[in-house]
Amino acid sequence: MSSDATGIFINETHTSAAIWQYRVEKMLLEGKTQYQTYQIANVPRFGKSLFLDYNIQTSLLDEYIFHECMSQPAMTLHPDPKRVVVCGGGEGATLREALFHNTVTEAAMIDIDEELVDMVKVHMPEWHQGAFEDPRTTLLHEDARGWLVREKGNNWDVILSDLPNPHEDGPGQMLFTKEYFQICFDALGDDGVLALQAGSASENYPACMVSCIKTLQEVFPHVAGYYGMVNTFFQPWGFVLASKKHDPLALTREEIEARHAARGVKTKYYTGRFHQACFTLPEYLEKAIDEQGRILTDAEPFVWDA
Amino acid sequence: MSSDATGIFINETHTSAAIWQYRVEKMLLEGKTQYQTYQIANVPRFGKSLFLDYNIQTSLLDEYIFHECMSQPAMTLHPDPKRVVVCGGGEGATLREALFHNTVTEAAMIDIDEELVDMVKVHMPEWHQGAFEDPRTTLLHEDARGWLVREKGNNWDVILSDLPNPHEDGPGQMLFTKEYFQICFDALGDDGVLALQAGSASENYPACMVSCIKTLQEVFPHVAGYYGMVNTFFQPWGFVLASKKHDPLALTREEIEARHAARGVKTKYYTGRFHQACFTLPEYLEKAIDEQGRILTDAEPFVWDA
Amino acid sequence: MSSDATGIFINETHTSAAIWQYRVEKMLLEGKTQYQTYQIANVPRFGKSLFLDYNIQTSLLDEYIFHECMSQPAMTLHPDPKRVVVCGGGEGATLREALFHNTVTEAAMIDIDEELVDMVKVHMPEWHQGAFEDPRTTLLHEDARGWLVREKGNNWDVILSDLPNPHEDGPGQMLFTKEYFQICFDALGDDGVLALQAGSASENYPACMVSCIKTLQEVFPHVAGYYGMVNTFFQPWGFVLASKKHDPLALTREEIEARHAARGVKTKYYTGRFHQACFTLPEYLEKAIDEQGRILTDAEPFVWDA
Amino acid sequence: MSSDATGIFINETHTSAAIWQYRVEKMLLEGKTQYQTYQIANVPRFGKSLFLDYNIQTSLLDEYIFHECMSQPAMTLHPDPKRVVVCGGGEGATLREALFHNTVTEAAMIDIDEELVDMVKVHMPEWHQGAFEDPRTTLLHEDARGWLVREKGNNWDVILSDLPNPHEDGPGQMLFTKEYFQICFDALGDDGVLALQAGSASENYPACMVSCIKTLQEVFPHVAGYYGMVNTFFQPWGFVLASKKHDPLALTREEIEARHAARGVKTKYYTGRFHQACFTLPEYLEKAIDEQGRILTDAEPFVWDA
Repeated sequence: MSSDATGIFINETHTSAAIWQYRVEKMLLEGKTQYQTYQIANVPRFGKSLFLDYNIQTSLLDEYIFHECMSQPAMTLHPDPKRVVVCGGGEGATLREALFHNTVTEAAMIDIDEELVDMVKVHMPEWHQGAFEDPRTTLLHEDARGWLVREKGNNWDVILSDLPNPHEDGPGQMLFTKEYFQICFDALGDDGVLALQAGSASENYPACMVSCIKTLQEVFPHVAGYYGMVNTFFQPWGFVLASKKHDPLALTREEIEARHAARGVKTKYYTGRFHQACFTLPEYLEKAIDEQGRILTDAEPFVWDA
Repeated sequence: MSSDATGIFINETHTSAAIWQYRVEKMLLEGKTQYQTYQIANVPRFGKSLFLDYNIQTSLLDEYIFHECMSQPAMTLHPDPKRVVVCGGGEGATLREALFHNTVTEAAMIDIDEELVDMVKVHMPEWHQGAFEDPRTTLLHEDARGWLVREKGNNWDVILSDLPNPHEDGPGQMLFTKEYFQICFDALGDDGVLALQAGSASENYPACMVSCIKTLQEVFPHVAGYYGMVNTFFQPWGFVLASKKHDPLALTREEIEARHAARGVKTKYYTGRFHQACFTLPEYLEKAIDEQGRILTDAEPFVWDA
Repeated sequence: MSSDATGIFINETHTSAAIWQYRVEKMLLEGKTQYQTYQIANVPRFGKSLFLDYNIQTSLLDEYIFHECMSQPAMTLHPDPKRVVVCGGGEGATLREALFHNTVTEAAMIDIDEELVDMVKVHMPEWHQGAFEDPRTTLLHEDARGWLVREKGNNWDVILSDLPNPHEDGPGQMLFTKEYFQICFDALGDDGVLALQAGSASENYPACMVSCIKTLQEVFPHVAGYYGMVNTFFQPWGFVLASKKHDPLALTREEIEARHAARGVKTKYYTGRFHQACFTLPEYLEKAIDEQGRILTDAEPFVWDA
Repeated sequence: MSSDATGIFINETHTSAAIWQYRVEKMLLEGKTQYQTYQIANVPRFGKSLFLDYNIQTSLLDEYIFHECMSQPAMTLHPDPKRVVVCGGGEGATLREALFHNTVTEAAMIDIDEELVDMVKVHMPEWHQGAFEDPRTTLLHEDARGWLVREKGNNWDVILSDLPNPHEDGPGQMLFTKEYFQICFDALGDDGVLALQAGSASENYPACMVSCIKTLQEVFPHVAGYYGMVNTFFQPWGFVLASKKHDPLALTREEIEARHAARGVKTKYYTGRFHQACFTLPEYLEKAIDEQGRILTDAEPFVWDA
C-alpha cells in the first residue's frame, strides 16, 4: 500500500476526530470567487476532483452516486416532473440528472456563485455534460431562497436543494430551516417533491441530517431520509426527500424501473433494485432522529459544532 | 468545526488517495507483540480505539456495527448454532456476539497473537465483556488454518473468520484463498455457515471483497456479500457469508426477529428490519465482482496494490 | 530517506508557513497540569523529547545547546556568580548548568508549575541530573515576577529567565516587558547579569527576539543578542544577555576558557572558541531590530501574530 | 498562532524524525522534467518558493542566504576571479551572485536539466535577475562531471558546485566523491577555489557535510566548512570551501570588504563582518568530522540513510 508521506495534499477536517489528507497528483486549477476558494485536482484513484474551501465536493470516481441521490429519488417519485428547480448545484450534475427525464420542459438552476459556475462550464464538462446549454435550462445567479419566495404558487414539480452545509454565517445556513422548507412547499404544486442534501449519514455526525428530517416533518406530510455511499466523502451521505402527496417508501422496484424506462433515464446507483436499501436507515439514524434531531428555524438555525 | 492542526495523531494510509490523521486525545497504551504494534487511544467522538500497525481496528463509537456484521448474519442464518469457531477475533467482540445466542454450547477462538489477546483481556473489557471467561469458550493461540485442517469432519456449525486483511506476506494472506475456504467447508456440518470480514466495500478498493465472493462461490453453494457502515473505517466495510444449505437472501425479517427473540439476542445494527438493506449490494460492487473479482488460491493469493 | 506516512505524530505549528509532524516511536508519558499539557516521547534521531501544549521543548539530541545558551554566557560573564535565580526552567537543565559553576552558593528556581516540575524530577533525570537535590538549590512554585519584586535590592548575581514564549494571555506574556526587566535589574547587584530565551532567531519570525533586545536596551547599559542552533526547534533560537556593568562582546576566548577552567565548567556548545560566533548576529537580525523591534510594556506587551 | 489544519500543503520528509507540511497559499506552477517534478508555490511568510521532488529548494524569504553562501565565500577568496563554472545551479541565482563580481569575464553554467532551466527563465526572474542573458554567461545542458573532465588544465578560477544532495542512484551521487573533487582540482588554476553545497549542518544529520569535508581534504590543501541559516530549510545548511592556495580562515573582514567594494559586490548575509561567524563551526560539527566523516569515492559514494 502506498504510504509515501511526501507529496502535495489538500487537508480537510472531519469533525474533531480526524484530518484527511487527500493526495494531489496534479493541481489542475485554483481560484477564488466572491464566496469561496476552489481547487480542481487529480487525486489518485478518485480522479479529477473539486474542492471548495478545502472540502472535497465531488470526484469522478463516484460523483454519479451523489448526484443520482440528489436528483433521482425526487424526480422518480413525481409522477410527471415537467418543471424542476435546482437550488445551488454548481457543478451542473444535479441539473444533468434532472434533465435525463424526458418529461422535463423547464429547469431553473439558481446558484448564487456566478464565478464558480462560469469556471465549471469550462473546466468540469464531465459533470455538467452540456446541461447548461440545454434549451430547457434557465441559469440564474441569485439567492435561491429569495428567488423561491417569489415563485410562491407557481406550481413547480420538483425542487432539488443541492446547497452547502449550514456552517455558521455561511451562505447555506438559512436554507436549512423550517421557514425555507415552507417557502419550498409553497412554490411546489400538489404533486410536488423536494429533495435536499443533508450532511453526513455517519454515526459520528448525523445531527444535521436528522434535524433536517425532523424539521421537514413540520412542513411536509411525507418525509424520508436516505443515503448514498459516497466514498469520496469517506462516509455515507445523507439526503432527505419531502413530498406533498406521494410516499417515497411506497414506490416499488417495478414502478421505478417503468418510470425510468418511459422517461429514458439510465441510472448506475439509484436503481429500482436499490431504492429500498437507500431508504432503509440504520438504527443509529433512527435513534439519532429522536435523540439529536431538532427543529431548525431562522431564529435557531443549525449550529455546526463537530 | 474544530480544525486545529496541533495535537497528537495516528496516521493511516487509505490507498494512494489519502492519509487519515486520527486525533488522539489521550494515548492509553502502546506496545508490540511478536506480530504487530498496537495502541489504545482516545479519539474525539470515536472514544476508546484500537490501532494495529497504525491502522484503526475498532472504536467504541461503532464497534457494534463491525462485530454484529461479523457474527450475527451467520449465527442467525444457522437454524441451531451450537458449536462456533472464531478465527482471529482478537478483541473478543466477535466471540461475544456469538455467545449472545443461547443455543451455543461451545465456542473456540483461535487467535495466533497471544500477547495481544492477553492485553485485550485487561484493557478492552468494553469489547469482550467477559466472553473470554464464559465457560463455553476455549481460547487457543495457533494458526487458525492449521487448526481447522485438523477439525475436518468435526461438524462445526458456524465459522467466523475475523482476520487481518491479506497484505503481502502478512499473517492473513493464506486465510483468503480457495484452499482455506475448502478447509472451512470440510470443518462445517451440513447446515454450516462461514462468515468473513473481506475488506473495503467502497468503490475505491472493492477488489478484495469481490475476490472473496468469487472464490467462495467455487466452494459453497450459497454465497452473499453484505456490508456495514463502519464510520471508524471511513468507508463501508465488506463481509461475505457462505453457506452449505441455507440461502441468506431467503431469510425474512420475521424469521430473524423470531430467532433473535428465541435465542435471547438483541442487536443494534443487524436487525430483521435491516437485513435486506445489508445484503443489497450497490451496483458498483455487483459490477466489481465481474470486473475485478479473481479466484484466490494459495498459488495466487490476493495481492494488495492500493 | 524514511518517508513513511503512517505512524504516531505530534503536530506543531510553525507560524502560518508550516506544520511540523514529529514522529513518535514511543509515547512515554502524557499528562496535564493546571497550566499545560505535556508529553514525553521518543522521537527518532532526537531521542527522548518533551512537548508542552504540543510544542516541542527539548530533546536529548541537543538539549545541551539550548541549556548552555540559556545559562553559560550569563554565568561566564559574571566575574564571580554566587547567587543565581532561574525563572521558569521546568526541566531543571538551566539550573544544572548554573550549578556547574563551583562559585555558586545559592540557586533559587521559581517555576509556577509544581506538577510539571514534580513530573520532571521523576521522568527527566537526563535533564536535571540531580540539580533539584543539590543543597545549594531552593525550589519555589510561584509567579517569578511576583517573587522578584520582593527581591528588590537583594543583589542577586545572575537571573536566567527561561520562560515560555509570550503568547497572548499566556503565563509568560508579562515576563517579557520593560517593567519585568526593571524588576530584574532591581533584584541584581552591581555586577548583575540577566539572560533570557527570546524566541526564534530565524528570519521568518524574529519579532519577539528583536523586541526583547530593544526593550532591554531601555533598562540595561549592555545588551547583546545571541543564538544557538537548536535543531530540535528547526530554527536558530534567540537569547538576550543584559548586563549592568560587563560587556559580553568584550569577553575574550581566553577569559572564557580561564573562567570555565577555574570554576570546573565543561561546555559542549558555548565554548570560548564559539562565543564570538554566537554573539555575531546575521544582518537580518540587525535589520529586524530596527524594523520590527518594539519596546514591550505591560500596557502593550508582545502580541504573537505568526 | 495560525494553526488551521485545513488547506493545501506540500509535505517533505526530514529524516525519520519529522514530516514538514509547507502551507501553500497558491500553487503557481507544476510540472515534470526528465529528471524531477517541480512546483512553484506561494508559501505564507516565505513567499514564492520552488519545490523539486517535493523538497523545498528556495524561497524569496531567504534565497539570498543560500545563494550568497553558495557563491560569495569562494568568489571573494579568489584574488581575481575571471572565469567561473557553476555546476547545477538551476535557479540561476548562484550564477547571478558570481556575476556580481565585475572581475568576471566568463561564466559557464552546466545544468543537465534543460527543461527546468527553461522554466526558471520564465517563471523565476526574482532568482536569476537576468543572469542567463548576461553576455558573459554560457549555459550548457549536460552532465557537469563529464564536462569538467574535458576542462582539465583549462585553469578555471572558481567552481561553484550547486548540486542536488547525493541521494542513492540520484543524479548527484557521483558529484560528491573524491574522484569528482580531483576533476574539479584539475580544472582549476593555481589560485583556484571550489565551493559546494554539502547538505545539512544540523546535529541531526551532518554526515554528508562532514564526509565532504573529509573527502576534500584528500584533494585540496585548504578545506573549510561553513554554514548559512536557511530558515526555508528549517535547519542550518552546510557548505564547503576548498582552495589550492588561499586559506579562507585567513581572510580578514577588511579584505572582504575591500574586495567587495572594488568589485561592485553588495551582500546581505555573507559580509566581512559575518565571515568569521560563518566559518566557525559548532563543536558538534567538529566532532562529527571525526566520528561520522568518511572518504567518499566512486566505489563507495555517500549513502543517504536518514
